[in-house]
Amino acid sequence: MKVQQILLAARPKGLPTQSTFKTVTVELPELQQNEVLIKPVYYSVDPYMRGRMNDTKSYIPPFEVGKPIESGGVATVVESKDNNFHPGDLVMLTASRPLLPWSTASIYPASSLKKIDNNIPPSYYLGILGMPGLTAYFGLLDIGKPKAGETIVISGAAGAVGIVAGQIGKIYGCRVVGIAGGAEKVKMLTDKFNFDAAIDYKGNNDIQASVAAICPNGVDVYFDNVGGEISDGVMAHLNNFARVVLCGQIALYNSTEVPVGPRPQPLLLTRSVLMQGFVIGNYATRFAEGFKDLVEWVKTGKLKYTETTMEGFDKLPEAFLGLFAGKNSGKLIVKV
Amino acid sequence: MKVQQILLAARPKGLPTQSTFKTVTVELPELQQNEVLIKPVYYSVDPYMRGRMNDTKSYIPPFEVGKPIESGGVATVVESKDNNFHPGDLVMLTASRPLLPWSTASIYPASSLKKIDNNIPPSYYLGILGMPGLTAYFGLLDIGKPKAGETIVISGAAGAVGIVAGQIGKIYGCRVVGIAGGAEKVKMLTDKFNFDAAIDYKGNNDIQASVAAICPNGVDVYFDNVGGEISDGVMAHLNNFARVVLCGQIALYNSTEVPVGPRPQPLLLTRSVLMQGFVIGNYATRFAEGFKDLVEWVKTGKLKYTETTMEGFDKLPEAFLGLFAGKNSGKLIVKV
Repeated sequence: MKVQQILLAARPKGLPTQSTFKTVTVELPELQQNEVLIKPVYYSVDPYMRGRMNDTKSYIPPFEVGKPIESGGVATVVESKDNNFHPGDLVMLTASRPLLPWSTASIYPASSLKKIDNNIPPSYYLGILGMPGLTAYFGLLDIGKPKAGETIVISGAAGAVGIVAGQIGKIYGCRVVGIAGGAEKVKMLTDKFNFDAAIDYKGNNDIQASVAAICPNGVDVYFDNVGGEISDGVMAHLNNFARVVLCGQIALYNSTEVPVGPRPQPLLLTRSVLMQGFVIGNYATRFAEGFKDLVEWVKTGKLKYTETTMEGFDKLPEAFLGLFAGKNSGKLIVKV
Repeated sequence: MKVQQILLAARPKGLPTQSTFKTVTVELPELQQNEVLIKPVYYSVDPYMRGRMNDTKSYIPPFEVGKPIESGGVATVVESKDNNFHPGDLVMLTASRPLLPWSTASIYPASSLKKIDNNIPPSYYLGILGMPGLTAYFGLLDIGKPKAGETIVISGAAGAVGIVAGQIGKIYGCRVVGIAGGAEKVKMLTDKFNFDAAIDYKGNNDIQASVAAICPNGVDVYFDNVGGEISDGVMAHLNNFARVVLCGQIALYNSTEVPVGPRPQPLLLTRSVLMQGFVIGNYATRFAEGFKDLVEWVKTGKLKYTETTMEGFDKLPEAFLGLFAGKNSGKLIVKV
């Protein structure tokens, strides 16, 4: 059986482009006993994948040049030589990072697959109930430790993680302020997702002044998906004993040189601020706890959700590149 | 009674100089009932005092121009109109920050004074058993959370806080590496204070390479008294889940512009590092706990101590200015 695969063609310098990717056709081997042939139904594309395109030591190994890209995915069973799986079953990988290769079909041992609940829209497993939702949950609650009445500022607030973090902040009784790019996203945050206020960084040259105006009591928790100058503007208003949750630094991912900026240490010192980086894998043993709360909040309507969906396997590179132009609202999903 | 006082003459721009200070003679009022006249015996001079010379909001109010400087101090009673105090008693202030004005004598209500134990050298209350010792204790143990076998790197290691932090690290079974300026200090750290290794940043242009060579297993706890480029060199070698204790940033205190450097956030994120600023006042309710351990370790010889002493009330400005030239080993004390 012939399948199409999308490979990493070359490690990008700076911003990735279409030439970062290459589509090839390969032949899959015969299906063996206890193996399952699956086809992807939904892929997630995520900013952290940019880091894997560099050949640097990190919490997750780099992509290999000439090998398929992989990202979060939900698949359907096409053919099975295992009694536990049947054509039409919706499945994910059981790995602690359930990443599917970018391939129009793949073969896996049945033991590496798990069926998913048909009563939940399958794409939710890639977003609000998947890595982005769990990232928001543990980052905000375990590191940010929000207390009722406190002010939370979230950068990249209209992204997959940001909209969940903001709503959890509201569930915990905080004042939540989002920073996002464009009037439409800002409106979505306040109108649909219950944020108390939102700042449009694209229509705004002075984040620091805007934060000062909108957060008269200062900032207690800064949930940072973005880094760079937006963070400088927010951090100027951190209160004593504030917590900075380092969740993403998308503004810096395409830097070809070491990003330089004002040193934060003097401010962190004099105001007794905690800054903590994390990756969601740190919480692997506690995923069930987060999943339980997230499912409950989704079912009771406390947690709303939005996706941007693109269609077509061949759109995967374009979807990924769009992340760096801020094209998505909420989770960006590619429907195969 | 006429006394000499040393005032803040003007807020320094950049490095303070002798003209930052001004000595004046003033007349003290008559001693009233329940008041005590005290003369300073020892003063502490400390890097954090530089911050109080700026007119900026911080955890402790700025010094006022035209008012006496104040710093940690031990005093002796000269005259008393209170039954609890008698001439010759050694005393400190009971305030949570026991700071004495730079004045050759002062009058206080008896209720604001406490006697100190005559069996401990009085200058110890300004160093190993005072704010610097407690700062090392809570910073290293409460934030750094060292585990036996881990590697701790300490910048400003030969200073009042550094030598205590390093020895506590050894008590906890860690490998302790100090960074200090000059061959003499480096020798003192390894020979007298039991550090496993020490790096002389003055004879060394590449801190990053030195840390790599001396810490082959990476750095688990970085106790930072210094900031700036020394910290950049250490932080390049932080392990996953490392802790950075922000205790001081003396390299940056005299900057007239916002100090700029490589942004640490991407590294903190990908390695799940915690960075936490603190000031010792945060631990005021737990001082007794720290004091108890420190006294025990001093008595059993687990914790050694060194002071640099200058003599003369008029030497206070010079002693303070010497901190920024790295002239002291261990705690810098002025004996009046």
